[in-house]
Amino acid sequence: MSTAYERLVALGRELRLVGDAASLLGWDQEVLLPKRGVAYRAEQMSWFSGYLHERFTAAEVGEWIAEAEAASRSATDPVAAANLRVWRHAYDRATRLPKPLVQEFAEARVLAKSAWAEAREKSDFARFAPHLEKLVALSRERAERWGYEDHLYDALIDGFERGATARGLVATLGSLRESLVPVVEAATAREPFDRSKLAGHYPIERQQAFNREVAESIGFDFKAGRIDTAVHPFCSGMAPYDTRLTTRYDEGDFLSSLFGVLHETGHGLYEQGLPKDWRGQPVGSASSLGVHESQSRLWENHVGRSRGFWEKWLPRAIHHFPHLAGLTPDDLHAAVNQAERSHIRVEADEVTYDLHILLRFEMEMAIFSGELAVADIPGEWNRRFESYFGRPVRNDAEGCLQDIHWSMGIFGYFPTYSLGNLNAAHLARAAKRDVAVAAAFENADYGPLLDWMRKHIHEAGSLYLPDELVARAAGEPVTSDALVEHLRERYLGAH
Amino acid sequence: MSTAYERLVALGRELRLVGDAASLLGWDQEVLLPKRGVAYRAEQMSWFSGYLHERFTAAEVGEWIAEAEAASRSATDPVAAANLRVWRHAYDRATRLPKPLVQEFAEARVLAKSAWAEAREKSDFARFAPHLEKLVALSRERAERWGYEDHLYDALIDGFERGATARGLVATLGSLRESLVPVVEAATAREPFDRSKLAGHYPIERQQAFNREVAESIGFDFKAGRIDTAVHPFCSGMAPYDTRLTTRYDEGDFLSSLFGVLHETGHGLYEQGLPKDWRGQPVGSASSLGVHESQSRLWENHVGRSRGFWEKWLPRAIHHFPHLAGLTPDDLHAAVNQAERSHIRVEADEVTYDLHILLRFEMEMAIFSGELAVADIPGEWNRRFESYFGRPVRNDAEGCLQDIHWSMGIFGYFPTYSLGNLNAAHLARAAKRDVAVAAAFENADYGPLLDWMRKHIHEAGSLYLPDELVARAAGEPVTSDALVEHLRERYLGAH
Repeated sequence: MSTAYERLVALGRELRLVGDAASLLGWDQEVLLPKRGVAYRAEQMSWFSGYLHERFTAAEVGEWIAEAEAASRSATDPVAAANLRVWRHAYDRATRLPKPLVQEFAEARVLAKSAWAEAREKSDFARFAPHLEKLVALSRERAERWGYEDHLYDALIDGFERGATARGLVATLGSLRESLVPVVEAATAREPFDRSKLAGHYPIERQQAFNREVAESIGFDFKAGRIDTAVHPFCSGMAPYDTRLTTRYDEGDFLSSLFGVLHETGHGLYEQGLPKDWRGQPVGSASSLGVHESQSRLWENHVGRSRGFWEKWLPRAIHHFPHLAGLTPDDLHAAVNQAERSHIRVEADEVTYDLHILLRFEMEMAIFSGELAVADIPGEWNRRFESYFGRPVRNDAEGCLQDIHWSMGIFGYFPTYSLGNLNAAHLARAAKRDVAVAAAFENADYGPLLDWMRKHIHEAGSLYLPDELVARAAGEPVTSDALVEHLRERYLGAH
Repeated sequence: MSTAYERLVALGRELRLVGDAASLLGWDQEVLLPKRGVAYRAEQMSWFSGYLHERFTAAEVGEWIAEAEAASRSATDPVAAANLRVWRHAYDRATRLPKPLVQEFAEARVLAKSAWAEAREKSDFARFAPHLEKLVALSRERAERWGYEDHLYDALIDGFERGATARGLVATLGSLRESLVPVVEAATAREPFDRSKLAGHYPIERQQAFNREVAESIGFDFKAGRIDTAVHPFCSGMAPYDTRLTTRYDEGDFLSSLFGVLHETGHGLYEQGLPKDWRGQPVGSASSLGVHESQSRLWENHVGRSRGFWEKWLPRAIHHFPHLAGLTPDDLHAAVNQAERSHIRVEADEVTYDLHILLRFEMEMAIFSGELAVADIPGEWNRRFESYFGRPVRNDAEGCLQDIHWSMGIFGYFPTYSLGNLNAAHLARAAKRDVAVAAAFENADYGPLLDWMRKHIHEAGSLYLPDELVARAAGEPVTSDALVEHLRERYLGAH
């Protein structure tokens, strides 16, 4: 006779198997699915979400959780305690939603994602607006049912980042902005790098070969993962040994796909480094999105935009793109650290990136507080963008349609990107206190850095809440100090 | 309150949605799945097969079927009658298998398919042998449980081709062989086409562009389908508007991928032409594998190997592969009708193809009658091949490891390829009695041919048993006459 806890472990493992199949269906929609297959895929996703919800919200599951909580084991076994913490949180949230709402939301997301891709391609917000209306309404209903103390938006954030709140984020992002504004001013006033030095044709196959070489070198295991092409770069860890990255290609700019791959490889390394012994248990999953994003930003920014990186990789870039011969590591270092008031978040430099997040966070707060109607999103976006970045938005494709997130019904997710930036800088600073890691940044041989992350972050899975995990790893609680210090140093050459 | 029949329709639709998700997982294994992801995928497939089996074999489903059979409706409604025929057959078979056996088989298949791909690559039968042992043992157990009158193998065939039996196939294939032997002798004695005329480099991207152009021209809807690359060419109709073909490329021979695509496009056109109003119902599915294969062989052989086809497509081939300039349609017509005693079934010419099938059919009969042990398969294969084809097998990759089927645990499937050849010739002869179809073959504008197949085969779904469907379409029951006549005409220029 198995214990309640063992039954929970077995159920979790089974539902994870099924959920991972749904992840493949979701991945496939973005990478491969023929256009006319979307409606049926929506029905399939609805089925999966309904099935998973029904199994997990069964009354007996609630009894098992209560029984396991009452047993002494969770008091002495940190793994069991962490699993129960996640199950309790997930169960309480899930049981507040009726199955039809869960299914309606799952179906609406698939249709919205497809409509968004078309709307973005044609820069036509009107095509997407009814889908977004629906997702906002359904998200509002979900948040109301989940409940909140302060702000409805808290109930949404809570699904992505345990412990984060709207109030806390307003303070964190607001003060970050204040620290960053002078750095942005100074950085964007510097003489710009002459981008014509990089002009040329970069065939997709050679970009793929170069990106793969870089990803493999920093530790991505291609026997347990892939890189494919999608409109929106993302990483899907859809099985213990199946982590898939996507990127997109610009034949006039190899840096775009490279930095996409560096970013997603950071996510992928985290997924590949999660503890396999706990697979199928909550504790075997990533701690939070803000921690996940710390790993992607670490490899994208702290590694990929460092001078050491280009010392090593420029010769290989020249091998794949011979017209780069004659450029120096300093050229590339300058090119990838050029501060610009870009329209596109995923292509933004490090110093302006968090302004993009702040914009989205404020938009979402306005939408869910009821101040901003969906129809008014483009106008409001453009107004705010111009006020933050000092340049106009020319069309919705480079404005409010640029990101996939809203089409997937994920609201409250964007702020985790800034948390990721804070975490990344905080962890990088702490890791560099280890001389081997510091040396790794110099000689661009990143084994010790990956080992440090494996040991302090990846292998801990969800054993701790995100803030605690990062604080334990770094030896001190996260603040914005490390990020501001890092950006000042990188952009102003100052400490 | 819904009727028993309505409940069956709803259940069928739901299980089809779920089964189609499993199809995507299976497709993904062959096209994309990272190597280290195989074991988990096996667990997933085991889950899906167990879930589908459990739902479908529930006692209440049996009650619904009995109740619906007893209701008068099935007597007057041919759609309901056909659905009930398939449900009854499937239910009686499924309930004879315990769930653990179903799951064990599903898991073993995934692992075997992966082991086979490696074994074939290294031409090392020993790597595959233990997996094959297991699949043969499980298949024997399944067949024993399903039951049979005459030969255990009948129980296996019955899963692929209703109405076919070992005894009937021995007679059909034996007499076909007798008719074909003199044609093979004469055809292989002809002066061979000088293949050096086709020598050259065929870049994969250009082959892809050419194949796509051909597939689109004959009617494949790329908004509801794709072509990808896989070791083994196949077609997966995994949703009403999602039909995926695969092919493989040889940069020294564009005909290999082209004929793979023509073949799979034939399957794909059938899938895309199935009646969407009946989706999720058995009647909305393909009638049988022997009928499916009639469609692939029609486009591959009757169309692709005709002179009219090359009259139209050689100029486009030259466009994509300029070194072909100077060749004539007669050259291509001769090249694709060159009879050879090839080792590889899927690359075999039309006239020797059925000998490959006969070989496999006899091997399977010997395996399941207990005469042939798995360990002895390579030796027996090589002995038989040399006796049929007059040349030795040099290694297992070009011998008993060449086909994927056994690694998927599908035994009793190969004979349906010969049934497909018989059906294809029978249907082509009948269709050509329509002057528009006959003209289509001349001017290589195949709309009328596709329309004929849509009307007589595709749109009927599983309304009739395979033999009846083909007989109704052609106006007379299928025999080997049309195929023998077609091959005599093509290879001997005789009627």
